[in-house]
Amino acid sequence: MTTTPIEISLQERQNRLTAVREWLQREELDGLCIFNQVMIAYLVGYHFQQTERPVALVIGALGQQGMMVPNLEGDHVRDLPLINEVVVYPEYPGLRHPMHFLADLIACFGISPTKLAADQVGYPPVWGYRGPTLAELFDLPRVPSAADFLAGLRSRKSTEIVALLRQSAYWGNLAHEILQRSIVTGRTEIEIGQEASHAATAAMFAQLGSAYRNHDWGVTPIHVGFKAGPETAFPHPLGTSRPIQEGDLIVTWSTAKMAGYHAELERTLIVGEADDEQRFYFDHMCRAQEIGIAAIQPGRRCADVDQAVYDYWAANDLLPYVRHHTGHALGMEIHEAPFLDRGDETILAPGMVFSVEPGLYVPGIGGFRHSDTVLVTEDGNEVLTYYPRELGHLTIQP
Amino acid sequence: MTTTPIEISLQERQNRLTAVREWLQREELDGLCIFNQVMIAYLVGYHFQQTERPVALVIGALGQQGMMVPNLEGDHVRDLPLINEVVVYPEYPGLRHPMHFLADLIACFGISPTKLAADQVGYPPVWGYRGPTLAELFDLPRVPSAADFLAGLRSRKSTEIVALLRQSAYWGNLAHEILQRSIVTGRTEIEIGQEASHAATAAMFAQLGSAYRNHDWGVTPIHVGFKAGPETAFPHPLGTSRPIQEGDLIVTWSTAKMAGYHAELERTLIVGEADDEQRFYFDHMCRAQEIGIAAIQPGRRCADVDQAVYDYWAANDLLPYVRHHTGHALGMEIHEAPFLDRGDETILAPGMVFSVEPGLYVPGIGGFRHSDTVLVTEDGNEVLTYYPRELGHLTIQP
Repeated sequence: MTTTPIEISLQERQNRLTAVREWLQREELDGLCIFNQVMIAYLVGYHFQQTERPVALVIGALGQQGMMVPNLEGDHVRDLPLINEVVVYPEYPGLRHPMHFLADLIACFGISPTKLAADQVGYPPVWGYRGPTLAELFDLPRVPSAADFLAGLRSRKSTEIVALLRQSAYWGNLAHEILQRSIVTGRTEIEIGQEASHAATAAMFAQLGSAYRNHDWGVTPIHVGFKAGPETAFPHPLGTSRPIQEGDLIVTWSTAKMAGYHAELERTLIVGEADDEQRFYFDHMCRAQEIGIAAIQPGRRCADVDQAVYDYWAANDLLPYVRHHTGHALGMEIHEAPFLDRGDETILAPGMVFSVEPGLYVPGIGGFRHSDTVLVTEDGNEVLTYYPRELGHLTIQP
Repeated sequence: MTTTPIEISLQERQNRLTAVREWLQREELDGLCIFNQVMIAYLVGYHFQQTERPVALVIGALGQQGMMVPNLEGDHVRDLPLINEVVVYPEYPGLRHPMHFLADLIACFGISPTKLAADQVGYPPVWGYRGPTLAELFDLPRVPSAADFLAGLRSRKSTEIVALLRQSAYWGNLAHEILQRSIVTGRTEIEIGQEASHAATAAMFAQLGSAYRNHDWGVTPIHVGFKAGPETAFPHPLGTSRPIQEGDLIVTWSTAKMAGYHAELERTLIVGEADDEQRFYFDHMCRAQEIGIAAIQPGRRCADVDQAVYDYWAANDLLPYVRHHTGHALGMEIHEAPFLDRGDETILAPGMVFSVEPGLYVPGIGGFRHSDTVLVTEDGNEVLTYYPRELGHLTIQP
């Protein structure tokens, strides 16, 4: 595994910037302003801790690439190979609002505010941030949105990204094995999750050494954990300090970050022998996931995949236990657009990567959900995660 | 410690809601729409994992309290004591955009869209979310902002909150002691931080038991860690897998979450004996922090505190090494408004809580920053965090 690069190449980022400039030219725009932290990392490789201090990237149709950052981040940005102009403001809130420094950068690039698009209306209200939208800054009725274009660009993963996702799946698989071996009755999910995350990260560091770079502030490179007991009947329960008991259903997750990318792996485990009711829902969940994966084919719509799973739930009278759609794109963020959802008309194309995770949530019993990461290929799909799915392997001896 | 309650009381939340209704009446408004996840938790005690599926709270001037949530969160919300109406939408993106379900809730409460304020322009662009702003939804030129009022409300901490912050400071102090004892040359900051977080969480659980509830999805209750070496010259460096070396400067952090609240504790440590240069910056940083803490007095402005520290830096020719203001409010979020910043005119009032953390960042040498959590009292201030600040205690034998 160590011979594969664990960073995105400069050439790949240049390809992304070229795609942005081609879009600006098609739309007859002068420039694009990006406020989303993940999109900034995606385009120019600048990873940072997001705070109330606004950060923005400006890309001009003529090749300009500039950033507006707080003084605190100035030294981080000046050396970036893809940035040719940096405007540093002293502080937020400061004596002059940072958005006026952004206006300076846009003016310095010769970009007319009326020919400027943006990914969002302005810097998001992170922590204590307050400030004008881009439209308010320039006293315009609205600013054209690049959100659809950018979501489409990010949804098609390159071979470099797929290689990172394969590495992530490898370490996520190992971490999940460590997690499963650590689950015992009487201990809590938070303790076991932390311990397994730590052990898996140590194993990865031992192999990858200092070549590994963490791109997220305060996030562990490998994050593995689970929810146990009746609370798993909620798809997104918060953590509890309740000790694990025999008979508990467990829904896990395992993600390993590689250069900011991760695959998604989740499994349903049972502490002790499954009873008939648990087995009933477990088997239906597995079948629904198979149907979802099989439906992923280039040229079909996202909606078709979700409809295939929905039809299976309906035919088996299981809709009362369904709380969410079949899956979502992913890569840099835990969820990304598009969605395997009956309301999403996006056409599946080679390079798109989705979680496939139809779930059943039975009040009083618990949740049943496996999640695997599936790549759309030229002629079908490939499942990138490979942890066992069958109940035999997923039973924990209490 | 265990006799102190570790949840916010229903009475306290009712007081917060009453304050909102009084504001609505003063402003002659019918209702308020809240999109910010932390503000929703603050007002009605609903903690959840934020995703691209929008969530909103609507508070009416006549006592209405309702939520719009995805089906996935419906079971979480129906039992909340302070919610009397729940509108559940099936899924995002879904066949009908969730914002139309929000319009249904507002209509069901008899709130006129022209008499509605909001904390933000709309649901924030989390992950793959896209949708109309509230103004676009109702075809209005703008929606009045409640951001200033809400920031002010949250900035004044009740005695219940201060009790939680004291507990957080207690566990944060213990966790920092565990962290400092774990730092050895040759190991990496990520490994040691994970291990110490795990050990400190286990110690806290052993004492608090199942009374402890985690309010954040995927966040460890106690998070302790540090950055080491020349990268500490950046105030917000990302993690590295570089082993710790003798002579390294180390900047730590330690936070323990209690019912969603935390105090902030950060220290500068040195591996081995400090040299003269390290000692020079360390001593100036300590002095600047003393000046900042002493300047916190009710009736003064936030700007005055930052100016006092700024004047000290200027008098000692240290401004080239300054990258940020003196501190920020905190409580539920890592940073909150207002800010100890020369541009912030907010008057300090009893119950406000700030980090005081003036720092020096010297290229090639590293960063120097202690952070303590300071409560504004009726007649001065009280420092809630109490880990030793002097170099003697903060030196690690290599």
